[in-house]
Amino acid sequence: MKKVLIVSLLSLVVIMMYSFTRAEKKSPEGILIPEGYRNWTHVKTAVNNPAFASHSGFHHIYANSKALDGYKTGRFADGAIIVFDVLESIPQKNGDIYEGKRKLIDIMVKNSSRFSETGGWGYEEFTYSDSVTTKALYPTKEQCFNCHNTRKASSFIFSSYRS
Amino acid sequence: MKKVLIVSLLSLVVIMMYSFTRAEKKSPEGILIPEGYRNWTHVKTAVNNPAFASHSGFHHIYANSKALDGYKTGRFADGAIIVFDVLESIPQKNGDIYEGKRKLIDIMVKNSSRFSETGGWGYEEFTYSDSVTTKALYPTKEQCFNCHNTRKASSFIFSSYRS
Repeated sequence: MKKVLIVSLLSLVVIMMYSFTRAEKKSPEGILIPEGYRNWTHVKTAVNNPAFASHSGFHHIYANSKALDGYKTGRFADGAIIVFDVLESIPQKNGDIYEGKRKLIDIMVKNSSRFSETGGWGYEEFTYSDSVTTKALYPTKEQCFNCHNTRKASSFIFSSYRS
Repeated sequence: MKKVLIVSLLSLVVIMMYSFTRAEKKSPEGILIPEGYRNWTHVKTAVNNPAFASHSGFHHIYANSKALDGYKTGRFADGAIIVFDVLESIPQKNGDIYEGKRKLIDIMVKNSSRFSETGGWGYEEFTYSDSVTTKALYPTKEQCFNCHNTRKASSFIFSSYRS
């Protein structure tokens, strides 16, 4: 019985270590794509031109309820999460533009103590090589915060909620 | 006391008649812009070219929870509501496209018995002459259903949920 317990515990530790390694591989900051963000409030959309390279296409921004409060009050509480969902924009023959495949997802998570060096926000980017696989792309401080830091007066946010 | 009661009742009747008249003026089908639809699930977006005239611009589609179930199962229960939110698309000098003012909102409401003549869906369109005022534009059977009827095999819906 004792042996079974030890084997079970060891298996659990191995599974936990494996899961942790996978999560770390996916995101150095430990930020993951939040479950259910597609049901969050749609803040606004823009279409960026091809010169934006990896970031060209439809930009849909989604906010969880704490982030939505932040957009409305200007004060983002810990737990606020903003998702920046980028899809290909496919020009049609008649001049319409349709959504294509997902290209990447950028995420901002507010945690004042954990991300105190970057204005209280943690940043992560996941690129999509196909419709399933995702991976964290960059260390966020250089790639995200240097630019968002220019928006310090607006809580480091570029977008505003379009009612 | 009796006089007070009669006056109160008469006032109530007047208020109810006024409300009814206003609602009817806004929407012959009694369909109104649903409260809180901006917090519903964002189904997908397209940008339509200027040749679409009144319907050109950003098309954002929102679904309440019953409509979202319908998109996923193919069966739309009574109470499902779909909002088609059309905003100006403003081309920028660098080729980006930004959202402009709201132009119109189209609404589909599922009620099998009430709208049995139009596939169980009631339709309404509200145009925005400015950011505040709205008005119902057309009788829906001719303007909406004739086209949606071509999608009978898909529950009269043109769009599909883009996860």
